[in-house]
Amino acid sequence: MTTQIGRSIPRLEARAKVTGRADYTHNLLLPGMLYGKVFRSTVAHGRIRGIDTSAAAALEGVARVVTGEEIRALIPSPYYGPAFHDQPILALEKVRFVGEPMAVVLAADPHVAEQAVQLISAEYDELPAVYDEIEALEPDVIIHDELKPAGTFADLKHLAGRTHTNVALDFHLRRGDVDEAFATADCVIEHTFRTQQCVHLPFEALVSVADPADPGLTVYSATQTPSFVRTELARLLGWPENRIRVKVAFLGGGFGAKVYIKLEALTAALALLARRPVKISLTMEEQFYHITKHPTTFRIKSAVTRDGRITARRCQVWWNGGAYADIGPRVTQKSGFTAAGPYDIDNVAIDSYELYTNRPPAGALRGFGIPQLVWAYESHTDVLARALGIDPVEFRRRNILRDGRPQATGTPMQDAAIAAVLETLADRMNWNAPFDRGAGVVRRGRGIAIGFKASISPTTAVAIVNVSADGSVALYMNTVDMGQGADTAMALIVAEVLDLAAKDIRIVPPDTDVTPYDMGTLGSRSTFHMGNAVRLAAEDARNRLQALAAQAGLPLGSNYPAAEIFRKRYGMQAGNAVGTGTYVPSYAPPDASGMSPAVTPFWMAAGAGAEVEVDTETGHVRVTRLVNVADAGTPLNPAVARTQLSGAAIMQLGFTLHEKMEFDGGQVTNASLADYKIPGFQDIPVMETELVAAKQATGPFGAKGIGESGTFGVSPAIANAIDDAIGVHLTELPLTPEAVLRAITARFDRSKTHV
Amino acid sequence: MTTQIGRSIPRLEARAKVTGRADYTHNLLLPGMLYGKVFRSTVAHGRIRGIDTSAAAALEGVARVVTGEEIRALIPSPYYGPAFHDQPILALEKVRFVGEPMAVVLAADPHVAEQAVQLISAEYDELPAVYDEIEALEPDVIIHDELKPAGTFADLKHLAGRTHTNVALDFHLRRGDVDEAFATADCVIEHTFRTQQCVHLPFEALVSVADPADPGLTVYSATQTPSFVRTELARLLGWPENRIRVKVAFLGGGFGAKVYIKLEALTAALALLARRPVKISLTMEEQFYHITKHPTTFRIKSAVTRDGRITARRCQVWWNGGAYADIGPRVTQKSGFTAAGPYDIDNVAIDSYELYTNRPPAGALRGFGIPQLVWAYESHTDVLARALGIDPVEFRRRNILRDGRPQATGTPMQDAAIAAVLETLADRMNWNAPFDRGAGVVRRGRGIAIGFKASISPTTAVAIVNVSADGSVALYMNTVDMGQGADTAMALIVAEVLDLAAKDIRIVPPDTDVTPYDMGTLGSRSTFHMGNAVRLAAEDARNRLQALAAQAGLPLGSNYPAAEIFRKRYGMQAGNAVGTGTYVPSYAPPDASGMSPAVTPFWMAAGAGAEVEVDTETGHVRVTRLVNVADAGTPLNPAVARTQLSGAAIMQLGFTLHEKMEFDGGQVTNASLADYKIPGFQDIPVMETELVAAKQATGPFGAKGIGESGTFGVSPAIANAIDDAIGVHLTELPLTPEAVLRAITARFDRSKTHV
Repeated sequence: MTTQIGRSIPRLEARAKVTGRADYTHNLLLPGMLYGKVFRSTVAHGRIRGIDTSAAAALEGVARVVTGEEIRALIPSPYYGPAFHDQPILALEKVRFVGEPMAVVLAADPHVAEQAVQLISAEYDELPAVYDEIEALEPDVIIHDELKPAGTFADLKHLAGRTHTNVALDFHLRRGDVDEAFATADCVIEHTFRTQQCVHLPFEALVSVADPADPGLTVYSATQTPSFVRTELARLLGWPENRIRVKVAFLGGGFGAKVYIKLEALTAALALLARRPVKISLTMEEQFYHITKHPTTFRIKSAVTRDGRITARRCQVWWNGGAYADIGPRVTQKSGFTAAGPYDIDNVAIDSYELYTNRPPAGALRGFGIPQLVWAYESHTDVLARALGIDPVEFRRRNILRDGRPQATGTPMQDAAIAAVLETLADRMNWNAPFDRGAGVVRRGRGIAIGFKASISPTTAVAIVNVSADGSVALYMNTVDMGQGADTAMALIVAEVLDLAAKDIRIVPPDTDVTPYDMGTLGSRSTFHMGNAVRLAAEDARNRLQALAAQAGLPLGSNYPAAEIFRKRYGMQAGNAVGTGTYVPSYAPPDASGMSPAVTPFWMAAGAGAEVEVDTETGHVRVTRLVNVADAGTPLNPAVARTQLSGAAIMQLGFTLHEKMEFDGGQVTNASLADYKIPGFQDIPVMETELVAAKQATGPFGAKGIGESGTFGVSPAIANAIDDAIGVHLTELPLTPEAVLRAITARFDRSKTHV
Repeated sequence: MTTQIGRSIPRLEARAKVTGRADYTHNLLLPGMLYGKVFRSTVAHGRIRGIDTSAAAALEGVARVVTGEEIRALIPSPYYGPAFHDQPILALEKVRFVGEPMAVVLAADPHVAEQAVQLISAEYDELPAVYDEIEALEPDVIIHDELKPAGTFADLKHLAGRTHTNVALDFHLRRGDVDEAFATADCVIEHTFRTQQCVHLPFEALVSVADPADPGLTVYSATQTPSFVRTELARLLGWPENRIRVKVAFLGGGFGAKVYIKLEALTAALALLARRPVKISLTMEEQFYHITKHPTTFRIKSAVTRDGRITARRCQVWWNGGAYADIGPRVTQKSGFTAAGPYDIDNVAIDSYELYTNRPPAGALRGFGIPQLVWAYESHTDVLARALGIDPVEFRRRNILRDGRPQATGTPMQDAAIAAVLETLADRMNWNAPFDRGAGVVRRGRGIAIGFKASISPTTAVAIVNVSADGSVALYMNTVDMGQGADTAMALIVAEVLDLAAKDIRIVPPDTDVTPYDMGTLGSRSTFHMGNAVRLAAEDARNRLQALAAQAGLPLGSNYPAAEIFRKRYGMQAGNAVGTGTYVPSYAPPDASGMSPAVTPFWMAAGAGAEVEVDTETGHVRVTRLVNVADAGTPLNPAVARTQLSGAAIMQLGFTLHEKMEFDGGQVTNASLADYKIPGFQDIPVMETELVAAKQATGPFGAKGIGESGTFGVSPAIANAIDDAIGVHLTELPLTPEAVLRAITARFDRSKTHV
């Protein structure tokens, strides 16, 4: 019987944030600090003939101008990246996308640095470029001459570059015999869906400060992965990890833009060269050139029986990874596990390809590829249901993957409340009630979609819980609070174990010198993985307190306050009870057929329902209601879990209706918040969120992650609702008025033709 | 067989210090920070009639002027102190010494604050004052109306204030029957020795910055005791400890000036009142008003047999503690254990009194009272030997306390190489060789002295050793490196256990949010107490690594590198092995007779030998050779241990020959380095140091503390050498030319009288 878990409490950091006291890296000033401003490539693909930095270096107030060659003098192999070591700290020999960093001006005054950047020029031998993931399949334009998988992603090695080096990774899963199933099916339907390139745009833009402090380097960074930054910098510099200290303040959002390593290698190299602290903080515009969301092409083909059972599905997904791999190969592989959707299908073939192109790099963005997949397979599912004349909810119900059944990889489903999500969604949407679809110009429709996701593995989380002699408690962990409420969730776990109040737990901010290893704050893994580690650490601390009580001769089982135990044991208010917890879920890497008995430590399940009004004269789509339902296991802090759901849904709403990086060749043409439309308050529909009654048996007090779930169903639910309203199914995001109008017109033209 | 211990290596922080990169609190600037400058009492004892701060508050640039009453509005009982809660954060109702803080001006510009302080005035009803410890024994002038022993010093409660409240504490030890022994003795000799008031003068003056950071307070302080500061601030504010964070950079010396709580309560209160960071850094002059070394009067009386056995000794010591107790009561009690010297005496009576007077407070200063005692008992010992016609070394040899024998408290001597110190000293001094005492104006003499000290108890030290996934290691501890080389010593211990190099161990600087509890860096306790905790923590980490290896299926006993173990266990470079160690020596508080079977976890033993030249016309004493010998057990880093010895000896040389706070009434008249003479390079004699071959079986790898030992013998060795040269024994420190000349003249006059 828990006393704290499951009761909604305010976030611990709320007061610090609203009073402006919360620390952010952007506020950090260090004595002698230089600001770095980046000179960027203006060509999408080319050999560098030269960079002329002389005028910039001569500008008064400029401390130094650094190019890739100088960095190579410091770091012989200056290539970084979480999956492949393919990205130069500053461009060397070649540039591979417009916006690629080529040189940095350092100056005490950032305005001087900015001015000096304008004085730099570069000459290139331009090369043909490729921007489309399908075109990149042809080896006409090769972006990288060789592939360099990272050691920590050793299991990707055998998968990389099977055809040519534009294919960074190809993942394949084979289950049953799809060809046979297709050949004998009642009905086979195939679609191709596409998604656009988007960008994370955390309101706190990427920022990193490196300080060459004795005996090595201290990096203050807005990163979701302090442990990884430390490991990667240590690898680049050839140093032991304990010479590098990575400190993280609160983050103003991350969404995957701040995972693994971004600006840190650059600021570290600059600081070591300049022997002074160096800060680089990106502008909103510059964020478009650092990390983005993969554009995708997804060809999906299903065999169904007349009574609505899916018997086979082939999925081919091409991921446009841009010029550098970042974590794209993992997106390609991990999302590949579930590309066939949350359905119980005997015959499955999945092929998932990560392609290099001459676009800005793509990586993780809230959902790690899943929203792109759900968009496709749930659009496809609705079309299938319609084709068979079966209600879309009922069609899903007949096919849904239920606990105990093997998922496509062979890993059994466990504690995945997919069916509950579907039924709750149908309830919430009053699915069986009559629905007024309107008439005339404005038509109304509704749609639902469900999705699921495997969590990340292999992965390790370590936590330390330190009870002071007055009984007050500090929690040391590397989980980053980036707005999601992780600190509060973890404090609740400690409070539950040690019978305290969450607000009284002191959270030690991430600092790799003091907070122990954690893989990263990503993939909705913190609540489950770090939560388990924190629970173990708190229990260890409790056990150590009890051992101290026994040593002090206090009777067993008595509930002495901690302060009393310390005083009795040490003769004064002295000592600590230091508990540690390490959580490592069991994991088996997929074999050559993509099969694994334990591909994920837990399953995330969620869905969305949308009601829309479509103006058939303008193509304008108004989402009038957006329902999000998810399985959070037993939520630790339900109110915060629900804000995660709605926040993710709003973000995905932007990717569904508005957001798209526009290009002229390789040049982004709308790299500003004036031109790139994110949802405003006026765009937000009536939002409803619900967490189904569930329990993740292996999670801390039954909880599991929820940070990405709200993204899953939004895009296809809206597309399905539009189809419900106007009878056309859009296959490419975003669902702009232009696209809707084009589809209406095409259907009208088509019907005219048939008349 | 150790591989690292006992080999001299350079200090880890040496490079940071000589390149100017080492962090000191004086360098800390925080946004919005105010500087505090202190207005001080000009009377030694008086009731405050009023403080006029209006002109100061009106000065442009002054943010605020704070008096004691405003602090009381924030903290209802604003009295602090480690032994008694007797010291107001700013004076309330009364002032008790000239220089007592009464108000603080806060301003962004420290010069404005300083200027504003000059505009403050106070009115007092003056009270009679008492400055001398013997005069304070009379209850004519009462300094404190009541005594308020601190909870953590509960064992002092029953000892406090037996006669009247000027006696803060009286410690008594009774062993055997001294009266009987005196009555039946061959020879009884009694002396009274006095010492002067001195000051620590760390070159980094006291400094503290308090920042009202969410959710409580962060204090950056040059303190030797971060854990204590946290506990004491938590008590004052009524907060849990985890709302207060105390961070410590390197210290530019401490010597006991920075133990327990000094400026921290004041800066904390000011920061909370001003809601802005507040910094107070003392000037050299101001250091004379915050903490000093006890003046003492020591009446010592011994009974000896004709053949040179001491049969009884009575020690009466009066400690002039100044206006506030600070840690004085502990000095009085703890030094009382060994006031009879390192001799095996059957009948001992010790009375040790801590007196309040109207002087600046006295507390711990390198040696914690022992130098004052050794000064007296080793001067006395030489006079005894001379009286009996026995060589001073031989006389000591006959009486020395040897291992296995009970010390005066009853605690058996163990691993105390006192005899070895004496013999080594005699060897080094070529004691048995002829010695030229000179003739004419300049006379030469030599002298030795030995002393010992009990270490501190009860006390607790906690350490954490964290092995990262690449095998690199961080050590978390609250021991403060104040120049004594503690970081290097602790790194050596970790390196020895984990088979690494000391320079590769990362030391996490003291930060109560992350480094675990330690009683404090004081009393030469770190090497022994924290060293044991660090060893336990490193062994725990090693055991955890071995457990991980076993879990990973690596064959037992194989010497796999840590990085390999982590990779095998967690499938990637991930995880930590977190070891913790808590060290608590056994301890029994002394009973009403001052007896205890375990009064100290270890014994320190050391001695000094001096050769001097005395100019009989000017009284000038030149120390031509100073030999220091000590028992460091098995030193961890012999070269650094020797610098501790010589550093302590030079410091004590200043207290012996030059240093003395001069007073006019209660006003210090030489509060500056221009007027208060500390040893310069020209004053330093030929120094020799030697560590005897020894082993502290209960210490880490046989080591024990050495930070204070060098102070023990210096003063009496020089006084004994002067006596050896000119036949007079000075009984009061410092041994100035004036004092020497006065003594020569007195002897001359006396001999004239006798002629």
